[in-house]
Amino acid sequence: MIRLHRFAVLTLAALLTLALSTTAFSQHVRNPLPVPDVEGFKTLKCDFHLHTVFSDGRVWPTVRVIEAYRQGLDVIALTDHDDYHPWAPHVSEDLMRPHELAKPMADELGIILIPGIEITKGEWHFNALFLEDRNVTKNLEKKEALIAAKKHGAFVFWNHPGWQRPERWFPEIDPLWDSQLFSGIELVNGKTVYDGIYQEMMDKNLAILSNTDWHMPATEGDIEGRAITLVFARTADPSGIREALEARRTAAWMGGEVWGSKEMLTGLWEGAVKVENSSGTVAAGGSYTLRLSNSSAFEFRIDAAAKPEWLSLRGSRLAAQSGMAVAARIAEEAPQGSHEIDLVFKITNFHTGPGENLVVNVPLRLVVE
Amino acid sequence: MIRLHRFAVLTLAALLTLALSTTAFSQHVRNPLPVPDVEGFKTLKCDFHLHTVFSDGRVWPTVRVIEAYRQGLDVIALTDHDDYHPWAPHVSEDLMRPHELAKPMADELGIILIPGIEITKGEWHFNALFLEDRNVTKNLEKKEALIAAKKHGAFVFWNHPGWQRPERWFPEIDPLWDSQLFSGIELVNGKTVYDGIYQEMMDKNLAILSNTDWHMPATEGDIEGRAITLVFARTADPSGIREALEARRTAAWMGGEVWGSKEMLTGLWEGAVKVENSSGTVAAGGSYTLRLSNSSAFEFRIDAAAKPEWLSLRGSRLAAQSGMAVAARIAEEAPQGSHEIDLVFKITNFHTGPGENLVVNVPLRLVVE
Amino acid sequence: MIRLHRFAVLTLAALLTLALSTTAFSQHVRNPLPVPDVEGFKTLKCDFHLHTVFSDGRVWPTVRVIEAYRQGLDVIALTDHDDYHPWAPHVSEDLMRPHELAKPMADELGIILIPGIEITKGEWHFNALFLEDRNVTKNLEKKEALIAAKKHGAFVFWNHPGWQRPERWFPEIDPLWDSQLFSGIELVNGKTVYDGIYQEMMDKNLAILSNTDWHMPATEGDIEGRAITLVFARTADPSGIREALEARRTAAWMGGEVWGSKEMLTGLWEGAVKVENSSGTVAAGGSYTLRLSNSSAFEFRIDAAAKPEWLSLRGSRLAAQSGMAVAARIAEEAPQGSHEIDLVFKITNFHTGPGENLVVNVPLRLVVE
Amino acid sequence: MIRLHRFAVLTLAALLTLALSTTAFSQHVRNPLPVPDVEGFKTLKCDFHLHTVFSDGRVWPTVRVIEAYRQGLDVIALTDHDDYHPWAPHVSEDLMRPHELAKPMADELGIILIPGIEITKGEWHFNALFLEDRNVTKNLEKKEALIAAKKHGAFVFWNHPGWQRPERWFPEIDPLWDSQLFSGIELVNGKTVYDGIYQEMMDKNLAILSNTDWHMPATEGDIEGRAITLVFARTADPSGIREALEARRTAAWMGGEVWGSKEMLTGLWEGAVKVENSSGTVAAGGSYTLRLSNSSAFEFRIDAAAKPEWLSLRGSRLAAQSGMAVAARIAEEAPQGSHEIDLVFKITNFHTGPGENLVVNVPLRLVVE
Repeated sequence: MIRLHRFAVLTLAALLTLALSTTAFSQHVRNPLPVPDVEGFKTLKCDFHLHTVFSDGRVWPTVRVIEAYRQGLDVIALTDHDDYHPWAPHVSEDLMRPHELAKPMADELGIILIPGIEITKGEWHFNALFLEDRNVTKNLEKKEALIAAKKHGAFVFWNHPGWQRPERWFPEIDPLWDSQLFSGIELVNGKTVYDGIYQEMMDKNLAILSNTDWHMPATEGDIEGRAITLVFARTADPSGIREALEARRTAAWMGGEVWGSKEMLTGLWEGAVKVENSSGTVAAGGSYTLRLSNSSAFEFRIDAAAKPEWLSLRGSRLAAQSGMAVAARIAEEAPQGSHEIDLVFKITNFHTGPGENLVVNVPLRLVVE
Repeated sequence: MIRLHRFAVLTLAALLTLALSTTAFSQHVRNPLPVPDVEGFKTLKCDFHLHTVFSDGRVWPTVRVIEAYRQGLDVIALTDHDDYHPWAPHVSEDLMRPHELAKPMADELGIILIPGIEITKGEWHFNALFLEDRNVTKNLEKKEALIAAKKHGAFVFWNHPGWQRPERWFPEIDPLWDSQLFSGIELVNGKTVYDGIYQEMMDKNLAILSNTDWHMPATEGDIEGRAITLVFARTADPSGIREALEARRTAAWMGGEVWGSKEMLTGLWEGAVKVENSSGTVAAGGSYTLRLSNSSAFEFRIDAAAKPEWLSLRGSRLAAQSGMAVAARIAEEAPQGSHEIDLVFKITNFHTGPGENLVVNVPLRLVVE
Repeated sequence: MIRLHRFAVLTLAALLTLALSTTAFSQHVRNPLPVPDVEGFKTLKCDFHLHTVFSDGRVWPTVRVIEAYRQGLDVIALTDHDDYHPWAPHVSEDLMRPHELAKPMADELGIILIPGIEITKGEWHFNALFLEDRNVTKNLEKKEALIAAKKHGAFVFWNHPGWQRPERWFPEIDPLWDSQLFSGIELVNGKTVYDGIYQEMMDKNLAILSNTDWHMPATEGDIEGRAITLVFARTADPSGIREALEARRTAAWMGGEVWGSKEMLTGLWEGAVKVENSSGTVAAGGSYTLRLSNSSAFEFRIDAAAKPEWLSLRGSRLAAQSGMAVAARIAEEAPQGSHEIDLVFKITNFHTGPGENLVVNVPLRLVVE
Repeated sequence: MIRLHRFAVLTLAALLTLALSTTAFSQHVRNPLPVPDVEGFKTLKCDFHLHTVFSDGRVWPTVRVIEAYRQGLDVIALTDHDDYHPWAPHVSEDLMRPHELAKPMADELGIILIPGIEITKGEWHFNALFLEDRNVTKNLEKKEALIAAKKHGAFVFWNHPGWQRPERWFPEIDPLWDSQLFSGIELVNGKTVYDGIYQEMMDKNLAILSNTDWHMPATEGDIEGRAITLVFARTADPSGIREALEARRTAAWMGGEVWGSKEMLTGLWEGAVKVENSSGTVAAGGSYTLRLSNSSAFEFRIDAAAKPEWLSLRGSRLAAQSGMAVAARIAEEAPQGSHEIDLVFKITNFHTGPGENLVVNVPLRLVVE
């Protein structure tokens, strides 16, 4: 049915015209997925790797826009394969189309749509963003394709770098790297984390990316803990996003884990978490119940340490958009009087490098009676 | 990414070949949606009205098969419009394709796929099932199209009969009806119930249909309480389904409500519900807690009455795949001794006709002390 | 087990002492249930009617505090019956105890605990809040009991005013009202709304209360849409709550519905909802997709009207802590040029009086091309 | 409120009487938590360790019965501490009461209630089930108490054997073991698994127990994956349960993991899982999609192996009350013809001993074309 029940009398012509924009008459619900801004940068939730029926995906381009709105994203790119078209000849191979067909819906729903493609040369896949002419890399060899993309102004990153292989920096990638033909790497693709490449990415100052690479429509199971690239942008528009990518101000977020720089991750913690009772009175041998609240969609898994040693706190989990009350134990030998205490929280699901976690301080003033 | 990480070394050719069947390597989870069989008939859960990108839908044909598996359906038909192709020329208009492309996945997942189309002539829409040659109705006027479909062996039903109009039996439908060009009506399309046509359907002995008419991928909100046609078939195969449709052994199920014949709906109750304690001892002025269990995905909303009058029971709701304990009140004036009691349950969400509900009896033996 | 595994060596004495405060060592998670403050008043979420094992409830007093923390409440009162003690002699009848036993936990979790009782005289029940000496009304007749409560400084309200009767203002209540022995009424008790008393409450300027009256521990089903009294307080402490009750600055919230004054409910809307795109460009015959976001735990069910008539908008539902995109239809006859439009939203689940709903305006600037 | 709204006119006396059984008038909903019977034994879901306000619990005894009904249990025991009564003198210390107060509700809801206590001597805790005189162990030393319990006919097991200590067989327990004063051990208490004692339990042929030891009312988080003792009984009554405990026919179930004998766990798999397509035709280099269905509340985490080597299957997860379709890969070198294949599934969450998992065979007949 062409879902227009609501309007009384329509000519067939009007009916067909309207049908093309039928979803405009639907109501869509957005999970806001709140994340705090950081140091004056706007924190944008992005997915730069998505497929449609215009290569080997299984959805129409507008579906990706509606999914993005519903799931709380701000930015997406439709990146169909340049040289892989299993649905041809049933579906066109023209890579100008996915972006063009999705753009009006993106404007309606306030989603920023970045033009893009996936350069697909055998096992070597790279995404090229901000590419206005999206058919220029077809039938080229991989290095030539990257050169063409760059010449046409693309921001390029290397996709799922451990695909079909042990994860590492492959020798075959060196010529591309030496020619500066890509500027970022997917640390996360779908539900997979490419840990083996993490150190190399940091050493080479490549942008961290985290994308879903969805081909099917998103199911409930996919959405839970989906991959997101956080972009810390000066302005919430394509040029702001580009500038942030070039400046490497990104982080990866997937399955409750976040990977990024110490500065940005500290900013996320500070913007998300409030201590509700940072001072109080306790009894030696008793306890102090600390209350935190988290306004963001991040969760924080906390390993706590403290000076002095007479205060002990177990590990805890501050869930997304929740409060948490957790009791610190005050030893019998706690000295009477007023104390300035530094709780040291290691956030075990926030990664600032290979094997490194975000560490934050929570000051506390306690009077022991 | 073409999601094949797992295999060590693949030639590009093998890779491209495999990519065409990638979802074969995924794991799919099925909500079984249990419904009881009835009187020796197999109860099949069907959706005979679904769209793909081959008309104005927004998913690839295989998506509908996977959705059906996940949601517990047994049977679907892909019924793209014959004369409405807004995605052309980007996508082919050949209506042979959706069924052909989806069939291997249907076989893998055990979903019965019925070939079909939606005959779409202005505001008049009919689905033609079991149609092997699916391009025969194109560019014909509506009556001609129905004649052609019938000639090619289709089972035809009228879709969403109140669309764009007050629901009723339209005069324009009479010539089609007089020529016996359709055999069923969608009492339910999507989330809409066409009550106004219910009596006429029953008087004319038309098959009751209930279909989703989905164009977009199914979201969680769509799946909850989705439209399903229940088919009571002698055999779980296309010919069994056809025989049941011709014999009018169907029911509609949507949003917790079921519409069908008294015989079939009684069978669903009897196959789904068990009384766990049909006898017991009570005190006058006390209560008796009746315990029921429901093994089906139906819920039953119960208005209870009883003879004798000294036992009273409030309305209750027996949820899907749940048990329920509900207390009957025994009046002070209940006579001592053993009593055979007939609880009369009106199932307010099971409809056996316009304004009529299923009524079932629950015998109870109580000894009043 | 006395759940102290974590500490290595403990004497039995220490063990028994600690056991009394074991829940202090647990982690509790709070659903923040965000509601906006209004006009400089703090909006407090309160339940002034709860039972424990000290009358006919089935939980220990601290359970109510933990439930309140978890469910996002700010304020509770434990109001056991003065003259109904079915668990005696197994449990003490001393009404000083519930509050005293719960107070340390309330302090730990930041819950404001108001001392109270339920004056229970046959079918007449009144809650007395802020009552320090909670055994003073025992064995008194109802009017005497209310006089005693008032003399001891209580704020008194009438509970579930339609209990066992058609809902109305009962003649028997007149002597109590004439003597000004109560100052509020439960418009909502549990899942029941006492509509029949609403007009009378407003005419007599009685405080609106909405409480759960829970006896059992709260289950998931209870928590969903539970009764809450919203108190608009100058300060988030017992005296601020008392002042707000005396000044009648309260609202009722239950099952998604809110009842209160036009001023306060307007403030809740304004604090909760943002229009994300209040201006734009449209085509005659096209549509404009309006995007709203709601940061609160309220939902808003919207019936929309608009001037001019060439813009039409269907009813919609802005879910709690969600965004919503809803398309307005622009008629073919919409005149070209820039227009200042007033959308008029009737919030059908926000009640400002019997049969009256909150109405809010949403200004929009549209350029028709 | 004493929740009796529904009855028109009641004297206060009748009202107070009825109030004592008010929950009888509520409706309770049961999650059936289906588990299959095994080899002619009835599989009963039991929790033999629960607290109430009669020691240090925080709920009235009937609450435990209602929780058991709602959560799909068949059998519970209320086991308050003999020598630990922190709520005294507010609450009675008489251990006859919890069982007696809960029994009528248990009969109404069909829950089997086993009389019991927790013998609590410093850090040594044992549960004594089937104890009619439940005050006989008070103020006795631990060995004397166990002797008294045994003399009065109790079935005794050792609770949370690693509490406050590294988990192991403690030297202090030897005198009790040598005197045969206990017959089982909690392998699971709450969310804790006492792995360190598992081998010793098996060597000594002690019954495996798995109990919640709940003190607070059960929250949603507690219920998910709660501890359950599975008892394989000849008859679903107290004597059948006792016989099964004495014969060691029990298993532990918690958090998706099951621990028990190979015989019983094989029976659970066979009763729960059906292979829907155990034969089919495949292409060399293609795949075969195997479909399983699981009618039970268990999940099965599967590590698959197969002979011959040309068929490979990845790990999968067969969720509770769900179906699963998972693709087996057929290597290019698969020989043509008909093959009888044995899939070997290791169920990694079903434990038949320390470090041992349940292994089951799934026969398959494939024709390679």
